[in-house]
Amino acid sequence: MGISLGPNQYGKAEVRLVTVRRTGGVHHLRDLTVSSALRGDLSATHLTGDNSAVLATDTQKNTMYAFAKQQDVGEIEDFALRLGRRFVDTQEKITGARVSVEEQEWDRITVDGAPHAHSFSSSGGERRTTTVTVHADRAWVVSGVDGLVVLKSTGSEFHGYPQDEYTTLVETDDRILATAVTARWRYEGFTGIDWAKSHREIRQTLLETFATKHSLSLQQTLYAMGEAVLRARPEVAEIRFSLPNKHHFLVDLSPFGLENHNEVFYAADRPYGLIEGTVVRDEAEEPGPAWTDAVL
Amino acid sequence: MGISLGPNQYGKAEVRLVTVRRTGGVHHLRDLTVSSALRGDLSATHLTGDNSAVLATDTQKNTMYAFAKQQDVGEIEDFALRLGRRFVDTQEKITGARVSVEEQEWDRITVDGAPHAHSFSSSGGERRTTTVTVHADRAWVVSGVDGLVVLKSTGSEFHGYPQDEYTTLVETDDRILATAVTARWRYEGFTGIDWAKSHREIRQTLLETFATKHSLSLQQTLYAMGEAVLRARPEVAEIRFSLPNKHHFLVDLSPFGLENHNEVFYAADRPYGLIEGTVVRDEAEEPGPAWTDAVL
Amino acid sequence: MGISLGPNQYGKAEVRLVTVRRTGGVHHLRDLTVSSALRGDLSATHLTGDNSAVLATDTQKNTMYAFAKQQDVGEIEDFALRLGRRFVDTQEKITGARVSVEEQEWDRITVDGAPHAHSFSSSGGERRTTTVTVHADRAWVVSGVDGLVVLKSTGSEFHGYPQDEYTTLVETDDRILATAVTARWRYEGFTGIDWAKSHREIRQTLLETFATKHSLSLQQTLYAMGEAVLRARPEVAEIRFSLPNKHHFLVDLSPFGLENHNEVFYAADRPYGLIEGTVVRDEAEEPGPAWTDAVL
Amino acid sequence: MGISLGPNQYGKAEVRLVTVRRTGGVHHLRDLTVSSALRGDLSATHLTGDNSAVLATDTQKNTMYAFAKQQDVGEIEDFALRLGRRFVDTQEKITGARVSVEEQEWDRITVDGAPHAHSFSSSGGERRTTTVTVHADRAWVVSGVDGLVVLKSTGSEFHGYPQDEYTTLVETDDRILATAVTARWRYEGFTGIDWAKSHREIRQTLLETFATKHSLSLQQTLYAMGEAVLRARPEVAEIRFSLPNKHHFLVDLSPFGLENHNEVFYAADRPYGLIEGTVVRDEAEEPGPAWTDAVL
Repeated sequence: MGISLGPNQYGKAEVRLVTVRRTGGVHHLRDLTVSSALRGDLSATHLTGDNSAVLATDTQKNTMYAFAKQQDVGEIEDFALRLGRRFVDTQEKITGARVSVEEQEWDRITVDGAPHAHSFSSSGGERRTTTVTVHADRAWVVSGVDGLVVLKSTGSEFHGYPQDEYTTLVETDDRILATAVTARWRYEGFTGIDWAKSHREIRQTLLETFATKHSLSLQQTLYAMGEAVLRARPEVAEIRFSLPNKHHFLVDLSPFGLENHNEVFYAADRPYGLIEGTVVRDEAEEPGPAWTDAVL
Repeated sequence: MGISLGPNQYGKAEVRLVTVRRTGGVHHLRDLTVSSALRGDLSATHLTGDNSAVLATDTQKNTMYAFAKQQDVGEIEDFALRLGRRFVDTQEKITGARVSVEEQEWDRITVDGAPHAHSFSSSGGERRTTTVTVHADRAWVVSGVDGLVVLKSTGSEFHGYPQDEYTTLVETDDRILATAVTARWRYEGFTGIDWAKSHREIRQTLLETFATKHSLSLQQTLYAMGEAVLRARPEVAEIRFSLPNKHHFLVDLSPFGLENHNEVFYAADRPYGLIEGTVVRDEAEEPGPAWTDAVL
Repeated sequence: MGISLGPNQYGKAEVRLVTVRRTGGVHHLRDLTVSSALRGDLSATHLTGDNSAVLATDTQKNTMYAFAKQQDVGEIEDFALRLGRRFVDTQEKITGARVSVEEQEWDRITVDGAPHAHSFSSSGGERRTTTVTVHADRAWVVSGVDGLVVLKSTGSEFHGYPQDEYTTLVETDDRILATAVTARWRYEGFTGIDWAKSHREIRQTLLETFATKHSLSLQQTLYAMGEAVLRARPEVAEIRFSLPNKHHFLVDLSPFGLENHNEVFYAADRPYGLIEGTVVRDEAEEPGPAWTDAVL
Repeated sequence: MGISLGPNQYGKAEVRLVTVRRTGGVHHLRDLTVSSALRGDLSATHLTGDNSAVLATDTQKNTMYAFAKQQDVGEIEDFALRLGRRFVDTQEKITGARVSVEEQEWDRITVDGAPHAHSFSSSGGERRTTTVTVHADRAWVVSGVDGLVVLKSTGSEFHGYPQDEYTTLVETDDRILATAVTARWRYEGFTGIDWAKSHREIRQTLLETFATKHSLSLQQTLYAMGEAVLRARPEVAEIRFSLPNKHHFLVDLSPFGLENHNEVFYAADRPYGLIEGTVVRDEAEEPGPAWTDAVL
């Protein structure tokens, strides 16, 4: 009976890397969580425990730290590209390197109305992300945002869905729509892009579209956000979303002789709707391994 | 052998309550998590299962929702005081009610440079809190902040500590100091206070003091923050802190021939230092049950 | 510029479903978390908000509850298959349904040496899982285990890896090896399999192989576990693993004049190694959509 | 205006300590999470940053590791007592040391029907705990259990509670009762107690009482569990509980023409009831600082 090794990868996950750069007396803080995953001919370690092709995950971690010292981190996309390139170029058996970075933003504390030079606060929820895949001859960049929590208290309807014997949901032309946006967009190419500007403006497009698009379903909102990004950003080939529908149920106050005109809601934890979708530019280049994240 | 019922309380925890109030076309969103705990002569239910003094926790929840409809929630302190008063005044055996509220702030999404009327985003980490204790004849208010994450990249030293045979920590005159501030302040009295203004200005005092106080220990920073609040806010009797020392360790880059001049750090999850302390005004009134939170 | 809808799905996530079945005075408890995701021609809702093909996620939830009443849940694979079949057969535009179930096991409390008829305790960590994909004419079943936490305190080495300028890890012929096994195995076909027996015996094979396989790398252990499962279970076509290498670092006690002969360890949270891999039977049928989980 | 330092303490939290002891070829694994908190005259560091009385939290951590090497850890109560004694005896300004230990149990993996010598699995949820307070001349021990998750599918009623205008809960004589027991029991004295046996038998008493006590309220179950422990264990002075009432709501299947005879439930996450209470032996010695955990 033949048994074989299938898709596999290995690396170091969630390396917490904080850097401080000083210009004059002003400190610049970066707060990154970096993960690497290497792919290639790794059959030896799997079949015999021969580790001659296995760059230790500890070494991958050390490389992240050393690279953060040797050159300013810069945009997370560039940092990930440098790390991926390093792993592919120096390890003969490694044909693909995947480097992911999450960035936590910190704001300067305001003191006497002015931003402080070396003291920061962080609100914590949202993170800018990138996942870069590097092969010998090219690279793919997928950037995104996690935990962009948004809510609109009107401008959202939901009706016209099929009614079967298990349907009890009441149609509505006015509901709260709330979600925590996880978005990932794939760039065309991997050079010549102003990563920071692109991230900032895509984020703003997502927010504005969510706010202004009158919604007949969260799917429609998803598509509208994706379409708006693709129309505004020629550097983006494709954008994908995972949108939990964070239900806000109208509390039934009628037992207390009260009418609830969309005023008091119960915010549920579970279950939640989960809407996932992709919006692609028709002429976009093929994604190749850009989206091939994990084995599981 | 005598066995007795000791301190006890019961209630409904973590009721998720979201309200929308409309003024013209502008929506005002509030996002609260409310918990109640009732105290009094509850021996019957414990000893015999006689529930005649046990206002169901489901009813406590309903009361929160109904109150949110009947009157604008207002400041969380006032909402908690109204709820606590209701429970104490209507339940004969209940002599004390504790109501806690956490508020999650939402910001208006900016569209075309202007705040949107009914679309919001939330950064998620920090929460404003209050815990109110209501007795028949008076009340106590302890408000605070959770998850105020701050970091200073210099202006922090740590040295002069005892050296024993288990000491390996190297003294430093320049380190990162980072924490997530949990603060609770007890108000003098419970009426006539501008809760929102007090919270906003205490929060700013905490931030400014953290930023500007040159720190020889996190304890010193804690005390300085507390002292600054007490000096600035006559309405505050006492302030308590729980400050995890979120260690940022300098990465040893010397194996790679690199010097690390406080540039590259490893942010550790566990263990962490935990600094807890209280700063009190000498002439403050006695706290009574203000701090008596939980049985466990 | 052409823009199109790409891969998408939607459903209800994490429906918490607990059932009690009675045989005589003996109660049988099941604790499931069920998620559904529907696929098909969903362009209308995305492009225009026309929801005529969108079976509400609330209805999906209701269907889960109703099905749990109408027929004994049985094995989670069978329950998921019935639900998936329902969605595909009754919704014209839905061509694929994905139903995932996690089961939390409960044990009977022992009273006077005997298992109690209706009282249970749960240790909580590990979960049995299944993800079923149903199309019009067939189905695919991927079952697994989450959170199977294992550790061996010897019988694990790691050496022979490449040394580069960023390598500091010391080779070892005796280390702790610890992981939390996430495993998913794809079944050949979807009928005629004793799901419970298969799960139980695969789990035992995983444990025994982890315990007895002398390990030169976690990759080797992964492959050995997969190979052992495939050799023992003809009903399994393929097995995939995600194995965090939960590092246990030897504490350096030399500053205290103590030698640490693999006795005292620091268990790190982050970062961790992450080893992912697949072991497949050569003649296995093609997976089709069996592994196509999420859009993101 | 006088401002003073009030109650305070500091220490190292959540030190992850794993030990392996070998007897012949058989390995014995211990998995502890240890926290320390020191109290005393710590005004200098708070007021001036003079750290001469501040044993570094890093040193506290080192002491835990060194002690785990120098003597077999033994029962967590003894380990905590040794550590607390060390801190109080060697630090002049420290008058009280609080050491808490959580233990995660690991089971031996069964191979060919026999327990393996050095391979383990862990189910993860429940933890044995102790919190020890050491002063110059004596000590207090509070041990307990966290995360003991239990459920009974019948034998629980709830009725007879007050009905007011916000009451909608329907009385029931048959409901699911589920909780995750957090229990803490205070020992009389701190010597001559078989900690392991006491823990094991108290845990069993908790389980058996939960299972067999017909419940008219969770409060009644709480008291019954406490009373049973105090009756059976003369070494226990007092026991405290925090019991979340993990609601399992009967799903309304009537819209589907189905009757739900306590068969299908929705397990809610939030809100939950929270029942807290203490059961004390009348002649018990005073608790002193045994329960004085945290400042916040």
